[in-house]
Parts: sequence; C-alpha cells; structure tokens
Amino acid sequence: MIALVTRMSEDVEQLWLTSLSENMPGETIVPFRHLDQAAREAVDIAIVANPDPADIALLPALKWIHSVWAGVERLVGELGESRLPIVRLVDPQLSRTMAEAVLAWTYYLFRDMPAYAKFQQQHIWRQLAYRRPQDVMIGLLGLGALGAESAARLKHAGFNVIGWSRSAKSIDGVETFHGDQGLDALLGRSEILVCLLPLTVETRGLLNAERLSRMPQDASLINFARGPIVVGDDLVKALDAGALKHAVLDVFDVEPLPVEAAYWDHPGITVLPHISAPTDRETAAAIVADNIKTYRETARLPSIVDLKRGY
Amino acid sequence: MIALVTRMSEDVEQLWLTSLSENMPGETIVPFRHLDQAAREAVDIAIVANPDPADIALLPALKWIHSVWAGVERLVGELGESRLPIVRLVDPQLSRTMAEAVLAWTYYLFRDMPAYAKFQQQHIWRQLAYRRPQDVMIGLLGLGALGAESAARLKHAGFNVIGWSRSAKSIDGVETFHGDQGLDALLGRSEILVCLLPLTVETRGLLNAERLSRMPQDASLINFARGPIVVGDDLVKALDAGALKHAVLDVFDVEPLPVEAAYWDHPGITVLPHISAPTDRETAAAIVADNIKTYRETARLPSIVDLKRGY
Repeated sequence: MIALVTRMSEDVEQLWLTSLSENMPGETIVPFRHLDQAAREAVDIAIVANPDPADIALLPALKWIHSVWAGVERLVGELGESRLPIVRLVDPQLSRTMAEAVLAWTYYLFRDMPAYAKFQQQHIWRQLAYRRPQDVMIGLLGLGALGAESAARLKHAGFNVIGWSRSAKSIDGVETFHGDQGLDALLGRSEILVCLLPLTVETRGLLNAERLSRMPQDASLINFARGPIVVGDDLVKALDAGALKHAVLDVFDVEPLPVEAAYWDHPGITVLPHISAPTDRETAAAIVADNIKTYRETARLPSIVDLKRGY
Repeated sequence: MIALVTRMSEDVEQLWLTSLSENMPGETIVPFRHLDQAAREAVDIAIVANPDPADIALLPALKWIHSVWAGVERLVGELGESRLPIVRLVDPQLSRTMAEAVLAWTYYLFRDMPAYAKFQQQHIWRQLAYRRPQDVMIGLLGLGALGAESAARLKHAGFNVIGWSRSAKSIDGVETFHGDQGLDALLGRSEILVCLLPLTVETRGLLNAERLSRMPQDASLINFARGPIVVGDDLVKALDAGALKHAVLDVFDVEPLPVEAAYWDHPGITVLPHISAPTDRETAAAIVADNIKTYRETARLPSIVDLKRGY
C-alpha cells in the first residue's frame, strides 16, 4: 500500500491523488489522514510533498520515500536520520520548464527590461546600447539536468555560457569549472550569473559578499535554486553600492516572502513567487508511477538521494 | 561619388561615415552638407537614413538610393514621386535581433512578467498557473525575413506558431494564412499576436476595433513594426474593457512618444523606445558596401523597393 503524505491543501492533494491513481491503477494510494492503524502498517512506499516527519514515523513498514519535488533539502534535513531511501523527482519536463525560465529571465536582464520599466514610469524615451548575445557571458552554477538543459538553450540563443559544479563535469560547447578556485574564475567572467544549485551544507551562504565582489561591474544575478544559497544582506549591499546591476529572485529564506520584507520595494530586485519551474503534475505522476512499477517488478530502487551530499 | 544624406546628429553620422568608409576604401563618401556644387553633380549613389527630400533633389546625377534602415515607408512617401530606385537594408543580423526580441517579449507575456511586477508592487505572493509553450498559440503578422526567423525561434522554444502575410507564403512547420479572411482566422486563434508588417497604405490602421475584437479573451499584442498599423484608441478600449490582457508597444505614431501620452501610465501597456531591433552599424555597412561593389562591377542593383507595394 502507498501513502500520500503532504502538507498541501486537501484540494491540491486530491488533484495529485487523482493523477497518481490514474497512472497506477493496480496500486492502492491513500492520503495519510485516511489511514487507520492496520493500513499504516501495510504501507511500504510513501509519495510525499513537504510531509510532516511525525506522519512518516507512524509508518512502521515503510521501505522508501518518493518526493514529487526535485528539491529535497528539507526532506533530507527532517528525515535523514531515519536512513530511509529518498527518491527525488527527476523530470525532463521540469528541466525544460526551468531552462525556459532561465532563458526568459536572461532575456529580461539582457534586453534591459528592468531599465525600460523604470523609464516608462518616468515617461523617459531613452534607447540603451544593444549588445549581441555572442558578446555576453552567462555563468551557470549547477550542471545537473537543469543546468545542462539551460546551457543548451542559452547556447542556441547565441550567448556565451560557462558553468560550475561541485565536481568536474563536461558539457558540449560549455567551458566548465569546479572547486573553490574554479568558482572564483567563473564569477569573475559572469555578466549574468544563474544559480541552479541544490541547497546543501556546502552551498548554504555560498554567494556571500566576498564571492559577489568577484563578479564584473554591472553584473546581474538570477536565483532559481534556493534562497539561503545567497546571503541576502550581502546581495542588497552589492546592489546598493552599484557593484551589481540587478537581481531576479524566485526563492527566499522564508516562503511566502513576508509582506514586510525589504526585497519587495528594492528597485534593483525583481521578486518572483517561486514560479520559475513548477512541477507538472501529469508528467511527475507518470514518472513516479514508472519508478514504483520498476520497484514492484524488480525490487530495484531508482537513483536515490545521497544523504551526505544532500541531493 | 557617394553622398551620405541623413538627419542624424553629426556624431552619429560620423560613426556611420567611418563604418561605411572602412568597408568601401575605394569609394569617396561625403556627408551631404560637405558637398559643393561640383561634388553634388558627381554623386550617383546616396546612402540615406531619414534624409531631407530637399537634399536628395539637389543631386542631379543620382541613380539610386540605399537606405541603412529596413523600414522605408517614410522614404517611399517622400521620394516615391522621384521614381529613383530605393534599396532597403536586408540584414540577417537585423532578422536575428528582431527574432530575439520577439522571443524575449513573448516570454515576457507568456511567463506573466507584467502580472508579477504588479504583484511585487503590492507585496503580493501569488503563483499563476503555468501553461506549457506547446499549449499556447502565437500569431505572426508578416512572414518576410523577420517573420520567418521569428517563427523559427518561437518553434524551437516549443510554441505553436501561425502566420499571416499579404500574399500566400509557406514556412516549414507553420500554418500560414493570407488575405482578409485569412487574417480573421489567424486573429481568432492568436493568444499572443506579434506584428512585424511593413507600414503601407494597406496596413495603416489594420488592427482596428473590429479586428482586435476577433482575438481570444485575454490575448496580448506585441507591435514591433510601425505605430500606425494599430489604431491606438481601439487598442486602449480593448485593454480597458478587459478583452485584451496586455500590449507591448515599441513603435508609435509619433516618436519619441510625447511625454504627455497616455500610453506611459496605462497598466496594460509596456512602452519600449523603439529598441526591438536596432540596426547593427557594422553588419549594415558591410551589406551596403557589398551591394555598391556589385553595382560598380555589374551595373546591377540589388532587389529594390516596389514603390506601389511600399516595401
């Protein structure tokens, strides 16, 4: 038996239950709150989205957990000690949507949309110099599925792309870096820096004052990963000092971003409500179903999260 | 001898003179205001950017005119009666830059950037439903070099693309329409309509109340062509009535857009200062030089503007 364990509203959870059940007609999938004691003891797989760890602890026969999200740092933090295998969503549709967001907001910065919006507010007709994409360098932090797809989109659009990841990786047509020295080299050349890193012990606070100061004058930042990777106070200082030009932030230390947060009114910050790459329920449900089918037939798990590495 | 006839500032004209001279070391190119009577009589080619027609009339031996701009409706209107052949700029770099702008501002609308900007102003955290590009229809008006390149970019990004032109045309993977009935059919299906048409007698006022009303509820418009193709009052009424969602306007009846124009403060209009596809001086000068070299060697002109058609 499969338990669906979420802290979603009942409406949204029901939509997930329907999609998952349609993709696994042979499985019994029950939301946690509908499970009686006997049913809890029969659950061997949990499909989760931001689950309450206390609920997970009440499933004694649980073998493994499938997240319907790609980012699992909270799950790892809350459930890591249970040592249950965690599978996170790896969905090509999610990679496509994220790569689309990377290109869309790279264009937003590259074609000076924030500046033209300010000119409009002031009724100013002013043409900024146009640079061709082949004269602009985009730096990608993170070269997993999301980073690789984003690099391909940016290259097709004509941009120069360099990339950094924790361990050495190679991507066609992209100069890649890794390690601390590699990070400094990449930052020094990135006119638009796009953060797609997982949140781990190593990436928390990675983009601090010292590292932001390595970026070129008038560089911009896009954070589509997790809020705590960027030290917010340091970012605001770099913007206020005129060292950085603009930041597009889709993720924050606390979400929803509190109504009193200073980010909302900062002229150098575009606030987005965590919309860069929403999970596609249809494709995600099919992938989860496929992973569970393989497990039932072969007892093999899909690639699981490395609890030490954190993703 | 070649005359450079513009109403540019002297600084900008000098930049053009330098680029053109570098590309045509064997030619004598002189700004009109530096020509004496004897020199005027020796000019057989004029390279122009928004020239004063009175200046052109003072070049008695002039054989043809090369515009460094792609849009020539004003030149045709002012010089058409002289019956001098007019060559307009057809620059692949211009097509690439325009196609980039089409994709960039299509993403701007498709990824709801205007709505998220309003939410940010109001400190509202609200996630709008995501639709995949393959579920969205983009309609292109104009299928020349700019339209064809734009269609390819939009298709690569996953959008559905349909296109309309004055006369029948076919583009790989794009359903095309022409004529009045074809226009109505395209408008009825275009969730984002992108205007790339030349301004002619036929296209002036083309997008009026009646035609805008054929677009789907909540459709948006991008005008990167010429202001007078859209009836401004009709557009504002359609936005105010909630029939259309948003308009991105890069071109206006009068440019620069007057400081008192109502467009500046309309919440449903993004005003851009005619920056979608600026001429690239380097590539344009090389193309003009190539056309003139061919003419010198073979006496053949490149494809010229059809004065009756208007482009």
